[in-house]
Amino acid sequence: MTARVDASCGSISGKMMGKLYGVGLGPGDPDLMTLRAARLIGAARVVAYPALAGGESFARSIAADLIAAEAREIVMDVPMTVDRAPAQAAYDKGAAEIAAALEAGEDVVCLCEGDPFFYGSFMYVFARLSDRFEVEVVPGVTSVSACAARAGRPLVARNERLTVLPGPLPEAELRDRIGGAEAVAIMKVGRHMGKIRGVFADLGLLDRAVYVARVGLPDEVVCPLAEAPEAAPYFSMILMNKGDDPWL
Amino acid sequence: MTARVDASCGSISGKMMGKLYGVGLGPGDPDLMTLRAARLIGAARVVAYPALAGGESFARSIAADLIAAEAREIVMDVPMTVDRAPAQAAYDKGAAEIAAALEAGEDVVCLCEGDPFFYGSFMYVFARLSDRFEVEVVPGVTSVSACAARAGRPLVARNERLTVLPGPLPEAELRDRIGGAEAVAIMKVGRHMGKIRGVFADLGLLDRAVYVARVGLPDEVVCPLAEAPEAAPYFSMILMNKGDDPWL
Ligand SMILES: C[S@@+](CC[C@H](N)C(=O)[O-])C[C@H]1O[C@@H](n2cnc3c(N)ncnc32)[C@H](O)[C@@H]1O
Ligand SMILES: C[S@@+](CC[C@H](N)C(=O)[O-])C[C@H]1O[C@@H](n2cnc3c(N)ncnc32)[C@H](O)[C@@H]1O
Repeated sequence: MTARVDASCGSISGKMMGKLYGVGLGPGDPDLMTLRAARLIGAARVVAYPALAGGESFARSIAADLIAAEAREIVMDVPMTVDRAPAQAAYDKGAAEIAAALEAGEDVVCLCEGDPFFYGSFMYVFARLSDRFEVEVVPGVTSVSACAARAGRPLVARNERLTVLPGPLPEAELRDRIGGAEAVAIMKVGRHMGKIRGVFADLGLLDRAVYVARVGLPDEVVCPLAEAPEAAPYFSMILMNKGDDPWL
Repeated sequence: MTARVDASCGSISGKMMGKLYGVGLGPGDPDLMTLRAARLIGAARVVAYPALAGGESFARSIAADLIAAEAREIVMDVPMTVDRAPAQAAYDKGAAEIAAALEAGEDVVCLCEGDPFFYGSFMYVFARLSDRFEVEVVPGVTSVSACAARAGRPLVARNERLTVLPGPLPEAELRDRIGGAEAVAIMKVGRHMGKIRGVFADLGLLDRAVYVARVGLPDEVVCPLAEAPEAAPYFSMILMNKGDDPWL
């Protein structure tokens, strides 16, 4: 066999390269993992995942019961700073470790909370490795779908439009976007709760909005936005639909 | 035991009522079903699902291998007309059949393609029965997540906004919304392909958009929007993100 590089078939110098899997885990309840995710995790010999700000890895905790005892684990310690450079350095380092395993012919299953391509951490690994290695992305249930389900609040029907907004956006932009939208999901609420709730109140939409925190976890909260705690956790969101029984 | 009605505990005249499950199946590949969906479907004694326009039920085909031979099936024959009344009548009839099963104490698993609350058919059943019966909605992987995964195209990162638009919207509105958005998913492309592609071309965004049809099915198509067929199937979508490697 002659030496060659082939990103899709994965061989260098006749040696097979491993395949990278970016696996969505759903928003927290292990039961909301897909069949494919569960099978890949159970069979994995190398598992990678981010751990935020030195804490435990949320992604790993969702998959914990499926990870084989003998699996090797690559932990990416990602600092949560406003400056992006430290997080980028952490993903550079993690991607290099993952690349070494792939080059040694090992498959790597990279765990990602929710859906990998919807504000997911796997995008940072994907951006660094997808041009050199074969990658399969396994989509997952998003936190938006899970929060709507638990709140009993349909997101969008028929020809309605859905706008997904991150809570850290400036107040004026949130006001514009929420005002002009039919259905809205606000991600990453956390310490932005006061600002966001003020915008909903100003727009007269407070009674249409629902707050969901840590969906599927033991300390889940679902309540009207008006009653939500001022100190919202990072894993929380706000859902709103302006329609009147729009799905009938 | 005294007679009472209790929507959450499900008892009329001391007889237990069944529970209604609205189960998301993911976008087509049975492997993208959640563990919870697979378990509920496998155990179901009564299964309900829509069949569009007299055809086979797409939802049933996704779950087919899991449905028990002895399960009773409630088929909702939903006509695909622009006028909403015929579809509403079909859901009225289906909801009445489901209600009868629930009142007889049977649990009913209602199958729904993708995620139930994201343009899902289950919303029509939910709107008719959720005030009278206990309902659990099991979220599913959306077609948007699955199409992005197959196309290798991250949807949104960091503080980007995502706008989801149905293709049947008027051309002027599509132009406004796509022009003002950072990342876009266009659902229900089908016979609206010509109109939608024209809008992307006018906005100079044609080379940024990708087309995905029938994701996860044997006849899946993934290609640049410029090369997509003029006769797009109903189960297709267009994804676009204006960022330049925005996830790095
Ligand atoms: C970095 S994004 C990750 C989103 C994830 N990839 C997904 O598909 O849902 C983190 C945000 O997702 C939302 N989120 C994730 N998990 C959640 C949960 N269990 N409950 C409520 N919100 C959640 C919160 O808004 C949180 O700030
Ligand atoms: C009535 S909506 C149902 C959406 C579904 N509940 C979900 O969560 O994805 C139908 C639209 O979803 C998209 N869709 C659903 N399944 C798809 C698939 N397998 N491939 C591509 N698009 C799909 C298409 O845009 C289609 O017109």
